[in-house]
Amino acid sequence: MSKKTIIVFSGDYDRMMAAFIIANGAAAMDDEVTMFFTFWGLAALRKENPGISDKPKSGLQKMFAGMLPKGPEKLSLSKFNFAGAGRSMMKKVMRAENVMTVSELLATAQEQGIKLIACTMSMDVLGIGKEQLIDGIEYAGVATYLAEADEGNVNLFI
Amino acid sequence: MSKKTIIVFSGDYDRMMAAFIIANGAAAMDDEVTMFFTFWGLAALRKENPGISDKPKSGLQKMFAGMLPKGPEKLSLSKFNFAGAGRSMMKKVMRAENVMTVSELLATAQEQGIKLIACTMSMDVLGIGKEQLIDGIEYAGVATYLAEADEGNVNLFI
Amino acid sequence: MSKKTIIVFSGDYDRMMAAFIIANGAAAMDDEVTMFFTFWGLAALRKENPGISDKPKSGLQKMFAGMLPKGPEKLSLSKFNFAGAGRSMMKKVMRAENVMTVSELLATAQEQGIKLIACTMSMDVLGIGKEQLIDGIEYAGVATYLAEADEGNVNLFI
Repeated sequence: MSKKTIIVFSGDYDRMMAAFIIANGAAAMDDEVTMFFTFWGLAALRKENPGISDKPKSGLQKMFAGMLPKGPEKLSLSKFNFAGAGRSMMKKVMRAENVMTVSELLATAQEQGIKLIACTMSMDVLGIGKEQLIDGIEYAGVATYLAEADEGNVNLFI
Repeated sequence: MSKKTIIVFSGDYDRMMAAFIIANGAAAMDDEVTMFFTFWGLAALRKENPGISDKPKSGLQKMFAGMLPKGPEKLSLSKFNFAGAGRSMMKKVMRAENVMTVSELLATAQEQGIKLIACTMSMDVLGIGKEQLIDGIEYAGVATYLAEADEGNVNLFI
Repeated sequence: MSKKTIIVFSGDYDRMMAAFIIANGAAAMDDEVTMFFTFWGLAALRKENPGISDKPKSGLQKMFAGMLPKGPEKLSLSKFNFAGAGRSMMKKVMRAENVMTVSELLATAQEQGIKLIACTMSMDVLGIGKEQLIDGIEYAGVATYLAEADEGNVNLFI
């Protein structure tokens, strides 16, 4: 039993799959796992219907918040996305091959007790308030990440 | 002497260069190195003429397999690719500067005994069969990666 | 007190922010930090007015050097860049939220004694000479990176 940390910077559907598959695999082997969601990666923690946030203080933040995908199944593939068609097709293949979607991987991560942390600095920059994010997560900055990573034997940036 | 692992997720020519240069450098210093190729990274392990695969069960898998580059020298640069022209130009400069191509780096990796593992789950999703990939590699999933990474003192995701 | 290394491969403004925020955070906690800038990441170390370099031996190297952004504030966002408009807007929000720009993060990194290394092989491929890069940095190849990473307890590839 050891500890793993993953910084989830990318908001790509495929990279998010990789992050959660590694995290869930490690948790299944009784490792302690911390995932730190920053920048575009925050999109995976958004509610599907986040409503109007009180958070954005400026029109620019509203714009960024508006562009950021709402929840895991709205993320784009890093390649061959074709305005979402590529992602839909990949999800069809995944279902046929019994590969979990990112939503399912996220639910499993929460069930397994993986610590999900939203980066508060990124939330400020992108105009994302806590009420826009799913329940059961923590909020912290880089100092917390570093303290976790110091204890990790595998620390990835995805 | 220690152990290094690299997850090669990206199928970009330039990131693939970085992955192999680090891996070969470590192997040259007598480190044990494992490279785990997943998603678009699988493209580097494809034969140049992979033929018709029996693997794809569906048209969608055939489509993904058709879009995935066939072998290392068909990969795109992550920037300035210009439909392959940028990659060709970069390769000309590399030759003049005595920098190895990805094919040469891959051959060196195999000569140096670097363990190359193809991610079986990604193969399923992308419709890639074993007969499409080069010889001398292994096939495994996330549990194998995690076991290797637990022994590594440097574990990168590229 | 421990050691951290970060390979900065990406030349995206947002990924560069993440790299420097982690590096500066670690240095503030008295960690020893080494950042190894390779490929597009080299752009962050370029002077704003690098002048004409003697380095490029060929027109192709001149072309690559010409395309590579000159200094940190010319880097693009990995998403929503919109020809620089997205970056400008993000920087406005950052100022309002007291988040440092990449130039400021870089200056802080140098003040804190973070070791900044430019990858010499990438400099050759991209036709970048030493006179094009900022002062106070070191020059080395993969063997130096590996020696540093062997001593690191957190080693990231960004």
